[in-house]
Amino acid sequence: MPYDRPQGRSPHDHERAGARRLRPPAVRLEEARRDYAELLGRGLALDLTRGKPSPRQLDLAADLLSLPGDRYTAADGTDCRNYGSPDGLRELREIFSGFLQTPVDQLLAVGNSSLELMHDCLVHALLGTLPGAERRWADEERVAFLCPVPGYDRHFALCERYGIDMIPVPMTAAGPDLAEVERLVAADPAIKGIWCVPKYSNPDGTCYSDEVVRGLASMRTAAPDFRIFWDNAYAVHHLTAEEREVADVLAACAEAGNPDRAFVFGSTSKITLAGAGVAFFGSSPANVAWLRGRNAKRSIGPDKINQLRHALFLRDADGVRAHMRAHRALLRPKFDAVLRGFAKELGGTGLATWSTPEGGYFIVLNVPEGCARDVVRRAKEAGIALTPAGATHPYGQDPKDSVIRISPSYPDLAEVEQIIRGVATCVRLVGYEKLVADAAE
Amino acid sequence: MPYDRPQGRSPHDHERAGARRLRPPAVRLEEARRDYAELLGRGLALDLTRGKPSPRQLDLAADLLSLPGDRYTAADGTDCRNYGSPDGLRELREIFSGFLQTPVDQLLAVGNSSLELMHDCLVHALLGTLPGAERRWADEERVAFLCPVPGYDRHFALCERYGIDMIPVPMTAAGPDLAEVERLVAADPAIKGIWCVPKYSNPDGTCYSDEVVRGLASMRTAAPDFRIFWDNAYAVHHLTAEEREVADVLAACAEAGNPDRAFVFGSTSKITLAGAGVAFFGSSPANVAWLRGRNAKRSIGPDKINQLRHALFLRDADGVRAHMRAHRALLRPKFDAVLRGFAKELGGTGLATWSTPEGGYFIVLNVPEGCARDVVRRAKEAGIALTPAGATHPYGQDPKDSVIRISPSYPDLAEVEQIIRGVATCVRLVGYEKLVADAAE
Repeated sequence: MPYDRPQGRSPHDHERAGARRLRPPAVRLEEARRDYAELLGRGLALDLTRGKPSPRQLDLAADLLSLPGDRYTAADGTDCRNYGSPDGLRELREIFSGFLQTPVDQLLAVGNSSLELMHDCLVHALLGTLPGAERRWADEERVAFLCPVPGYDRHFALCERYGIDMIPVPMTAAGPDLAEVERLVAADPAIKGIWCVPKYSNPDGTCYSDEVVRGLASMRTAAPDFRIFWDNAYAVHHLTAEEREVADVLAACAEAGNPDRAFVFGSTSKITLAGAGVAFFGSSPANVAWLRGRNAKRSIGPDKINQLRHALFLRDADGVRAHMRAHRALLRPKFDAVLRGFAKELGGTGLATWSTPEGGYFIVLNVPEGCARDVVRRAKEAGIALTPAGATHPYGQDPKDSVIRISPSYPDLAEVEQIIRGVATCVRLVGYEKLVADAAE
Repeated sequence: MPYDRPQGRSPHDHERAGARRLRPPAVRLEEARRDYAELLGRGLALDLTRGKPSPRQLDLAADLLSLPGDRYTAADGTDCRNYGSPDGLRELREIFSGFLQTPVDQLLAVGNSSLELMHDCLVHALLGTLPGAERRWADEERVAFLCPVPGYDRHFALCERYGIDMIPVPMTAAGPDLAEVERLVAADPAIKGIWCVPKYSNPDGTCYSDEVVRGLASMRTAAPDFRIFWDNAYAVHHLTAEEREVADVLAACAEAGNPDRAFVFGSTSKITLAGAGVAFFGSSPANVAWLRGRNAKRSIGPDKINQLRHALFLRDADGVRAHMRAHRALLRPKFDAVLRGFAKELGGTGLATWSTPEGGYFIVLNVPEGCARDVVRRAKEAGIALTPAGATHPYGQDPKDSVIRISPSYPDLAEVEQIIRGVATCVRLVGYEKLVADAAE
């Protein structure tokens, strides 16, 4: 594996760090205070809040801006300019069928955002009746979702918006804690779903093991209409030459006799243009027929010109792979800079651990309990905007107040280095303050 | 008024028709049977079901297919390729602000379909709480909408989908029957809304009078959260040189002290590309804040590249007007052909009346009671697909079975002439059959 990175999630040793460790906490706190004062003096205004592609990444798709040119007919003769084709263009669905592990006939291409599709699936499950459901979720006394933590704030926001209770389950290095998930879903028929980002998970970069995928697909659920919301947002977003695969959830569900259990979501938002991409929904024939039927009354058809534009630009699966290697060339140095910066500034302090993702858009920084909010606040005061602490947990409540999400994609490399040095300073300041205060008690 | 058309909605006299009238019904039925047999023999396969723009109309927007070219920045510096800008591009909203009679700060540009926006407003009213509402509509014992008839089948389909009762109210030449609407909404707090296509109404082409607009805006409603769904789908879709104006509903509502009463919808679907356009939502500041808030959890921002593309192509309001004159040059001859065909084939028969729209996409053909389904069936057998009879009424039930919607935009002119001759033959066949049968009773 060619990824030049510290191993594991434990604190990282380093010469300078080793030297630092020898000094007593009060001295280290003084150093951190001086560094923080210096940081404040620099008047930064930097933003690391969201996982947005950088302008240079978007430049990779510049050709899209003048496509489809004089073409407007799909391979099957459809005039892409007019109404219709609710499933989306077949040639585009064919390109993504393999990546999303969904047969092309069970894959819809609709809209510009997979988040919208997840939202709409929730809404239709609330106001309609899912295959296998006894009633609409709106008519249930209580609906709950399992939320592996740390997780994606927008998933949690959708649940909160629709009054769906959120039950956190811990993430492990192989995905959500399967034993805990199995125990919960077997016992409680109100638990109707689980949020999963199976590959290069947001935010901790985890790839689900085959065992976890099979377990989720085959476990006994008290709810007959339980759904896995399989947000495969980073299916092709590798940071290393080893392109990780995750087991095929639809196949696993079908094999286990639960063919309708999983909804698969994906999009080109972080492949082509973040706001002007194409989103995908894949599932069993029954679920696809269900969503197609629900959409039929709402939609006059997706933007097929944009789909044709994407098919012409990406060409085929190899085209997608080549394009993603160009993204990797831009992203990887930023992730390396974060890992290098943390190792240099925090290694050996005992104050932090962090994830070393092989793909996706995020790094998780774990700071001592009770410190994450303070670190984010201190960073903000120094002109560095981070994702709010707690955003990785349901209701914005990280019970240990220790998880910070780092999104290095958008700023340029020099800014990333500056930001990480600044964040590390804040971690040292807050961490040593706590250490000294705890010692004084 | 330069529209070369028969006046009013009454049967049209014509020399040939005059001669036809003199023959007894049984003879006329024989003629119709011969004509229908000849029609069957021609093996037609023509489609007049939906109001789709023709390929030649779509050609008018050919430049869109290679825009925005090397541009990707909005006037305010926004990188349109990335996430964000939930309200949509200001420069595009400015172009449509006047046409949709909505201040630009109260106008959102989102998605590719106003139907989706109408759907989403219903869903959010069901699952959230509208400004002025006492509770979510999902928590009401009953929710009902007024449906002026004839009307748009997709409006009715949305109500049916979400269990919203539909109460038909008759259309007049000035819009929905205001006295009836006032009576109903004053008495029944379950009536939460009314569907309106205020200009060149689908399907009968009616333009609402100022009195009707003011009446709808100011009437007392038993429901505190009553909403006018103002589907201004044909705001700029004139068929004559006289570009009809309809009173400003948002201003009228504000003046009447009901600022939050109207939701305004529009789109470029029948201006630029039917599947690849931009949709708009306009309303009071409170309603806009409400929808913006509901969308915030769902959306990663609209496709701003498509909005930039549209702004560059249309340029300004005059650009839209010029573009719509080019549409008119293509559409008007088809509408004239329909009216000419009906006058020639059905004038003086006493079997049909039809609307003479000054804009929009449809003509209503009224046949004798109990005949519409049979006419559509006979046409289908002869290879002419028409919009199903009843589609213009809630639940697909036209109680008089007499309304047929004619959509002449898509086929080319020669086909329209063929179709209308065929439809007229079916009307004569079914109509005279009924006349002869009724006489025999």
